[in-house]
Amino acid sequence: MKPQFWLSAFLLVLLFMPRTVVRADQRYVITSAKDNVHQDTWTLSGENWSVSKRTLHGGKQDGVDLITIDNGVMQIDVIPTRGMNVYEVRSGDIRLGWDSPVDEIVHPALIDLESRGGLGWLEGFNEWMVRCGLEFAGHPGTDEFVTNTGDTATMELTLHGKIGNIPASEVEVVVDSNRPGRIRLRGVVYEKLFNGPKLKLVTELSVVPGESTFRIDDTIENQGGQQQEFQIIYHANFGAPLLGKDAKVHAAVKSVAPMNDHAAGEIDTYATYDEPTTGFAEQVYLVEPSADENGKTIAVLQNANGDRAASMQWTVDQLPYLTLWKNTAATQDGYVTGIEPATGYPFNRKVERQAGRVPKLDAGQSRRFTLDFTLHRNKEDVDAMIQKVKAIQADHQPIVRRTPPAN
Amino acid sequence: MKPQFWLSAFLLVLLFMPRTVVRADQRYVITSAKDNVHQDTWTLSGENWSVSKRTLHGGKQDGVDLITIDNGVMQIDVIPTRGMNVYEVRSGDIRLGWDSPVDEIVHPALIDLESRGGLGWLEGFNEWMVRCGLEFAGHPGTDEFVTNTGDTATMELTLHGKIGNIPASEVEVVVDSNRPGRIRLRGVVYEKLFNGPKLKLVTELSVVPGESTFRIDDTIENQGGQQQEFQIIYHANFGAPLLGKDAKVHAAVKSVAPMNDHAAGEIDTYATYDEPTTGFAEQVYLVEPSADENGKTIAVLQNANGDRAASMQWTVDQLPYLTLWKNTAATQDGYVTGIEPATGYPFNRKVERQAGRVPKLDAGQSRRFTLDFTLHRNKEDVDAMIQKVKAIQADHQPIVRRTPPAN
Amino acid sequence: MKPQFWLSAFLLVLLFMPRTVVRADQRYVITSAKDNVHQDTWTLSGENWSVSKRTLHGGKQDGVDLITIDNGVMQIDVIPTRGMNVYEVRSGDIRLGWDSPVDEIVHPALIDLESRGGLGWLEGFNEWMVRCGLEFAGHPGTDEFVTNTGDTATMELTLHGKIGNIPASEVEVVVDSNRPGRIRLRGVVYEKLFNGPKLKLVTELSVVPGESTFRIDDTIENQGGQQQEFQIIYHANFGAPLLGKDAKVHAAVKSVAPMNDHAAGEIDTYATYDEPTTGFAEQVYLVEPSADENGKTIAVLQNANGDRAASMQWTVDQLPYLTLWKNTAATQDGYVTGIEPATGYPFNRKVERQAGRVPKLDAGQSRRFTLDFTLHRNKEDVDAMIQKVKAIQADHQPIVRRTPPAN
Repeated sequence: MKPQFWLSAFLLVLLFMPRTVVRADQRYVITSAKDNVHQDTWTLSGENWSVSKRTLHGGKQDGVDLITIDNGVMQIDVIPTRGMNVYEVRSGDIRLGWDSPVDEIVHPALIDLESRGGLGWLEGFNEWMVRCGLEFAGHPGTDEFVTNTGDTATMELTLHGKIGNIPASEVEVVVDSNRPGRIRLRGVVYEKLFNGPKLKLVTELSVVPGESTFRIDDTIENQGGQQQEFQIIYHANFGAPLLGKDAKVHAAVKSVAPMNDHAAGEIDTYATYDEPTTGFAEQVYLVEPSADENGKTIAVLQNANGDRAASMQWTVDQLPYLTLWKNTAATQDGYVTGIEPATGYPFNRKVERQAGRVPKLDAGQSRRFTLDFTLHRNKEDVDAMIQKVKAIQADHQPIVRRTPPAN
Repeated sequence: MKPQFWLSAFLLVLLFMPRTVVRADQRYVITSAKDNVHQDTWTLSGENWSVSKRTLHGGKQDGVDLITIDNGVMQIDVIPTRGMNVYEVRSGDIRLGWDSPVDEIVHPALIDLESRGGLGWLEGFNEWMVRCGLEFAGHPGTDEFVTNTGDTATMELTLHGKIGNIPASEVEVVVDSNRPGRIRLRGVVYEKLFNGPKLKLVTELSVVPGESTFRIDDTIENQGGQQQEFQIIYHANFGAPLLGKDAKVHAAVKSVAPMNDHAAGEIDTYATYDEPTTGFAEQVYLVEPSADENGKTIAVLQNANGDRAASMQWTVDQLPYLTLWKNTAATQDGYVTGIEPATGYPFNRKVERQAGRVPKLDAGQSRRFTLDFTLHRNKEDVDAMIQKVKAIQADHQPIVRRTPPAN
Repeated sequence: MKPQFWLSAFLLVLLFMPRTVVRADQRYVITSAKDNVHQDTWTLSGENWSVSKRTLHGGKQDGVDLITIDNGVMQIDVIPTRGMNVYEVRSGDIRLGWDSPVDEIVHPALIDLESRGGLGWLEGFNEWMVRCGLEFAGHPGTDEFVTNTGDTATMELTLHGKIGNIPASEVEVVVDSNRPGRIRLRGVVYEKLFNGPKLKLVTELSVVPGESTFRIDDTIENQGGQQQEFQIIYHANFGAPLLGKDAKVHAAVKSVAPMNDHAAGEIDTYATYDEPTTGFAEQVYLVEPSADENGKTIAVLQNANGDRAASMQWTVDQLPYLTLWKNTAATQDGYVTGIEPATGYPFNRKVERQAGRVPKLDAGQSRRFTLDFTLHRNKEDVDAMIQKVKAIQADHQPIVRRTPPAN
């Protein structure tokens, strides 16, 4: 054949390679360590939605994968390289996310979790939603573990664990063929080592085209041969525009307690926020959520006007504890609040274990965690969701503890 | 010239670039930090053999180089990115290797050796043969060293040292022009720092086409200006199919001792293996091998039937100590045994130094370590090799110590 | 259009893509995390100068960016991946640089600063000029800091801080349109974390075509909302050919003190160098430089013959302290001297703070540091520069302290 033919063929291949035509009920592999697959850039699109993947370059983000799901209403950024953390959700004038002093999406290869006495995690912390866990999820400090010789030794836990800094090994998009055509972004993240936990996290973030709701549906499996402790905190972080002076958090509360003496002094206003305040030291409140007859509970963060809000719904059987982290510091230092459903509180695991808040998985056992997030764009919608919170609360008076738990 | 000509030329270059025609006695550079060379994929092949190099993608293995040598009988995977460790050797139904809970070949940039109290090495541990060393090779824990100010200070050693997590700086293939046409894969790995050891490891793994034997031939050189301690353990790890219930290890033994009290209780059956056992805590035995009149010794791992085996031969002048590591844990937790010729035992270097098992290299001095590995495919071959072990043992009764060494 | 046209177009694009034609007063972006830009290779050239960027491959340097500025007289290598450190300056038979036992330009992803009791920095140390800082810049050891809960805790500082192992987020070249057409290589390096320092370093290394002088012009800005301590040491390191037996350092000295007892014994010869000496333990001298009426001071390193030298000039208001680090060890161990203008001395920050040598930046405040370096190629030039040092010294007798500072 003539060279011209090959040229045309070559250019055609170039042109169409990165795109994929959508077929119903189809599975698209973006990354697979198993099959040695990694797409540098990748796009999939439907009538009013798209999923696109790119690789970030420059500085501390060099080589970081970023996937954006656009369902026509929201754009959701997910970071496979950082354990499928959700960087940001954008929808009109609403944003789930915050302005961290950490600007770039930092590659885990540049993070040293052991740095700064176990606070190295903070050098990469800028996501809207970062999972804490899985072996340990809370504060740094000494705890016991079993060494390679079978002896009990101590190790220094690091803040919020490893899972948010582990690259996903398998990433795929699945598009349901059936109505409503849910689009699912799945990632598999392994926190496994020899003589240590063998935990597999299967994450799924899914949307329906045109809807203002998305779902996180995770499964944690113990792939080891023995019983294994685990912890998970869904560390969801909100800055402007939802957070601001007089913004409020609404939750159905069985009890609330301050995490330390500093927070104790402000417990009466734990549910409302101040403007950015230079030198503000974080205040953390520990909530036992109450639930409806189906075990569901709701937390809502509304802006000051009450005409924009984000809500999250989950089952207290799955995530029985809720931490409210108030960090209304100066804008440059990170003006942010965390609303954090979890298997426990963010104390060091040693404390959590003593309090009976560290669950275990038998060999081969798994547990599922489902959270639904919704954006609310007007006063009626916001009020309706707050009413649902109040309905769960009903006439149960929240127990307000004025001193931190005695650990 | 016409564009068509350039197009054809361009496509021809594309077509032939990654392949290389073999010439006798030739040297092929795959990686060179010195000359800024890195081949993403690369293949060299002869009549009945090939060497191919690829880059792994996805998850924790992204960017890891993997070289496979196929001599027509065996396929051997070597990992330049992880210090020229040998991932696996496959030959028909024999495999040298094991199923670690760590599935991927983890990039050293994601490994923190200081993690978990110095046990971070375990997050990447899944190779058939990983070298431990070179500054230190054994258990974590405090030892002394000389700081940048010339003072003596203490540092926390990390499990099994750094060399298995350092990318090779120079990687090349050399094909002998003379019969039998040995194919040599060479890698240079530097464990050097300012105000610390300046050790150069030159590794060579070589095969002869059609043979069931391969050789590891390493040289460690002290490139510093002063005397330098070093340690090396050849941590060779075997799982199924060789390892199984009633598999046996055969070695010519001058003495054997348990490493700790736990192992002491099982010393009478130290040479045979159990089936995978949930919750099994490792048992480690410390062997002084005896040697023949040429200083050679042999260790053999045979399967339960005695019709498959792997043997290793080395010189006790080079590697005077042998550690048997029995870890017949549940399959999911890593069912594996280590047969580990070394310059010492895997105690912390402080203990090894006191016991006189930490060798030193003068400035510019080097030491060589040669190990021959053979696969045995039938009962006759296996028995013949076991007879060689017995011939070395002769009528010398092994000294069996029933208590761990007093450290 | 015919395929041939597209082919030609395609080849033309390929041909011209990496080159850029120079226009006056132009700004060229090489790396931008903000705009997701990273050039793998890049060249810009003028009449008698060029700036070229390449990516290093192989071993520990894989993925490291290296930029070489050639002004017709000097070639200067800058490492964006390692905080804009200057690897080497070459000009005829003069070299600013040294032969470290660390041969490769090590990627920060492979450096663990916490390693070896906080001395991990030494595994990548081989540059002519490496900045130490910014949160801390001196010796490792325990110091206090404020945690995420607002409490005071202790952390282990690591040797010489982080900035030299942080990839630059933004890198650009600016060419002045006005005479003399200064060529500026700018890099922005962030040392920022949540609940920690938020420091921005803007570095600029600039040359004028045909001149033997170059300038480093840095600005450190506190982007956080609160006052922040910082430290910076310009750790400039010289080996052969300038350093050698009977080489000398000339500085205008208000006072000089030994850093420890070991250095105290040799204080009378602190300004001259010995030949490479096996087992030499570093000697460090702490200098308060005196300045001329404009606040300028000068340090000169001359070779033994006095016909080659390098000088550096700076303002003592900006950098009031000068450390002389003599490490005339064996060649293989690193025969090198450091001439290090700084905001303080390289003691642990705790010591520096007590001595009042840790400056602070208010929220939004920045400080600038300008250093001019000149190469001197003959006896007249060298003598003239030494005379300038003497003119600053005038008849002020240096205070020579014979014991280390009491910390």
